[in-house]
Amino acid sequence: MTQHADTLLFNAQIATVQPDTKGYGLIDNGWLAVNAGKIVALGQGSVTDIKAQTSVDLRGQLLTPGLIDCHTHLVFGGDRANEFEQRLEGLSYEAIAKAGGGIKSTVKATREASFERLLQLAQLRLQRLINDGVTSVEIKSGYGLDIATERKILQVAEHLKSDYPVTIQRTYLGAHALPPEFANSSDDYIGFVCETAMPQLAGEGLIDAVDVFCEGIGFSPQQCEQVYQTAQSLGLPIKAHAEQLSDLGGAKLAAQYQALSVDHLEYLNTDDVASLKHSGTVAVLLPGAFYFLREQQLPPIDALRQHGVPMAIASDLNPGSSPINSLLTIMNMACVLFRLTPAEVLRGVTQHAAMALGLEHKGVIAVGKDADLCVWDVEHPAQIIAGMNQHSPQQVWIRGERVISK
Amino acid sequence: MTQHADTLLFNAQIATVQPDTKGYGLIDNGWLAVNAGKIVALGQGSVTDIKAQTSVDLRGQLLTPGLIDCHTHLVFGGDRANEFEQRLEGLSYEAIAKAGGGIKSTVKATREASFERLLQLAQLRLQRLINDGVTSVEIKSGYGLDIATERKILQVAEHLKSDYPVTIQRTYLGAHALPPEFANSSDDYIGFVCETAMPQLAGEGLIDAVDVFCEGIGFSPQQCEQVYQTAQSLGLPIKAHAEQLSDLGGAKLAAQYQALSVDHLEYLNTDDVASLKHSGTVAVLLPGAFYFLREQQLPPIDALRQHGVPMAIASDLNPGSSPINSLLTIMNMACVLFRLTPAEVLRGVTQHAAMALGLEHKGVIAVGKDADLCVWDVEHPAQIIAGMNQHSPQQVWIRGERVISK
Ligand SMILES: [Zn+2]
Ligand SMILES: [Zn+2]
Repeated sequence: MTQHADTLLFNAQIATVQPDTKGYGLIDNGWLAVNAGKIVALGQGSVTDIKAQTSVDLRGQLLTPGLIDCHTHLVFGGDRANEFEQRLEGLSYEAIAKAGGGIKSTVKATREASFERLLQLAQLRLQRLINDGVTSVEIKSGYGLDIATERKILQVAEHLKSDYPVTIQRTYLGAHALPPEFANSSDDYIGFVCETAMPQLAGEGLIDAVDVFCEGIGFSPQQCEQVYQTAQSLGLPIKAHAEQLSDLGGAKLAAQYQALSVDHLEYLNTDDVASLKHSGTVAVLLPGAFYFLREQQLPPIDALRQHGVPMAIASDLNPGSSPINSLLTIMNMACVLFRLTPAEVLRGVTQHAAMALGLEHKGVIAVGKDADLCVWDVEHPAQIIAGMNQHSPQQVWIRGERVISK
Repeated sequence: MTQHADTLLFNAQIATVQPDTKGYGLIDNGWLAVNAGKIVALGQGSVTDIKAQTSVDLRGQLLTPGLIDCHTHLVFGGDRANEFEQRLEGLSYEAIAKAGGGIKSTVKATREASFERLLQLAQLRLQRLINDGVTSVEIKSGYGLDIATERKILQVAEHLKSDYPVTIQRTYLGAHALPPEFANSSDDYIGFVCETAMPQLAGEGLIDAVDVFCEGIGFSPQQCEQVYQTAQSLGLPIKAHAEQLSDLGGAKLAAQYQALSVDHLEYLNTDDVASLKHSGTVAVLLPGAFYFLREQQLPPIDALRQHGVPMAIASDLNPGSSPINSLLTIMNMACVLFRLTPAEVLRGVTQHAAMALGLEHKGVIAVGKDADLCVWDVEHPAQIIAGMNQHSPQQVWIRGERVISK
């Protein structure tokens, strides 16, 4: 029976990254048909029984799912290049913090920035990610901390949807840092987050998920649990920045609340890995911050592998610890610094990144999934990842529409 | 007296990086005049006594010298993504080398590639560097090893000059690796390099400088000295890959031959640093290879600073140990991994990189220098370097002609 389709892409090497396949889940000489933004047929060899309005010969090029950056702080004001320079010139972290540096300076700059200015900066950053092949991106708040600025950040994230066809997930990260209004009273601030800010912003439909920074310099597990309980009562899934600089058991706690993901994990105890498996929580690894902070402690990657915990990779794009505006650069770091294989990394920014965002229809090339796709002029998928600044996609498709064509 | 000029650039923050200045050698609210490809006047505040055909208001943006990538292996065939993947999947270096991997595979692919194919690949790579603001680049041979292929590489480098206005320096690196024809007879190969290959290619006008790989897995200091003597007899300046993986005293030896530069230097003995100062040799640091090979041993940067040895930074772009097609990415690595200050890094890719190539008229913004310039939409030079993939130049000028304008 002949199937009608909007578009047929044929003569491609397809990295399907389907869950039940190994490596890249490759189909050589493959084709797929797209209709109404979805993949409606997928095959190998000669195309049969498809009648498409447009046919595109990919001439043997590589087809992958569109990339997904599942952890970013993409909306912020100012930058921290001055601190970067001061540290290299010999100033201590303490001296910089005392002078109002660190996350405080970004909160100040973000509060002061107009909606328009924040939007303009975010558009530039998002466009760079799209040029890398990113078709879905998560954006966290957390540089406002007061309601007005958190709203402004989430509204900028929302507005980006009308500028670009990219899928955007908005995460409320009120429990990111202690704002100056609540200096020395972090319990009061968490009370404000749970009783006032989160319900209000959720009521305005601005939140897709809720995140926390569970760390000695962030918030305690008890405080994070309060945030999870409020999120749960509002029907919002949770995420956590956990075990980045020390082991507070934050990942295991988040898993008890069926977290979509726990992120960073350098200090994750191997005993706690099984709890992630049980809750179906994704381990999001962030090699950019590891590189920038010159960390030595690697996440327990072998234990994550052994337990079959899905590992995602993300940019953590932010002005302090990961000012890296490229998911492709991060993918290389995941191999070089974390010793992941290229196939693990490709799944980490597609199949597993989609899981980390709860995007069931994305991240995999299979019938029924969204037609978010990248075309790469390479002979083998590892070529995308083995170098830096060498390859970018020739074509990017989002829900069946071609948004980049070189 | 009124001075006539082709172009006036005004209202700029100028990082002159002049030798007698500190930091970036900044001029706030600066201007410069260009005539016949040269900087003919430079000043601060209101422009006086210049009559220019074209005036460009830079609206407070940053003006730097065009960047100089003083160490690349930009012309090669094939890539080594397969080996990158095999290593991450657990194969040993030995097993990969036995299967014809490593530099051997690049020599094979470069020998097999046509002139046109090599040129096409080199054009793509060079264009990416130009997009980063690179206006001068050094290109080494060394993936041919036989005369025909070394000639092909150097001719590709020469041909790039007709495609792009970039300044290209061609370095003969015959003593890069032992070709299969000379297996187990490295003295014979060095004899061939000195008696046959180098004189012939120099006679064809294809060589601007001569380089060696002085290392246990490369060539001995004695063999390198033979190469230097031949180069000297042909009137060619020398360079050396030295002290990358071990301390053979290669840098000191090269300094005795007034080397333009010695490159890598992770294992340079601090006692040998003074010899570089005396010969006026530039220390070229290559953080890309350090990153890719996950080295732990840092070059003796404090000793280089104390002796006032000029430090340059380069990409070392090559398919094996530094597949990074971006000088801006490398500049960030120089800060993060080598702890250089942003001002040292900017001088390392301008003033000092020009010295490493013997380009006396480049690398600095001063009267009499070539008008190779970049315009950056930043408030402070550190912003170019503090992140990755965040900034690229708004304008690039080469010898007074604008080649990029966004
Ligand atoms: Zn984060
Ligand atoms: Zn090299």
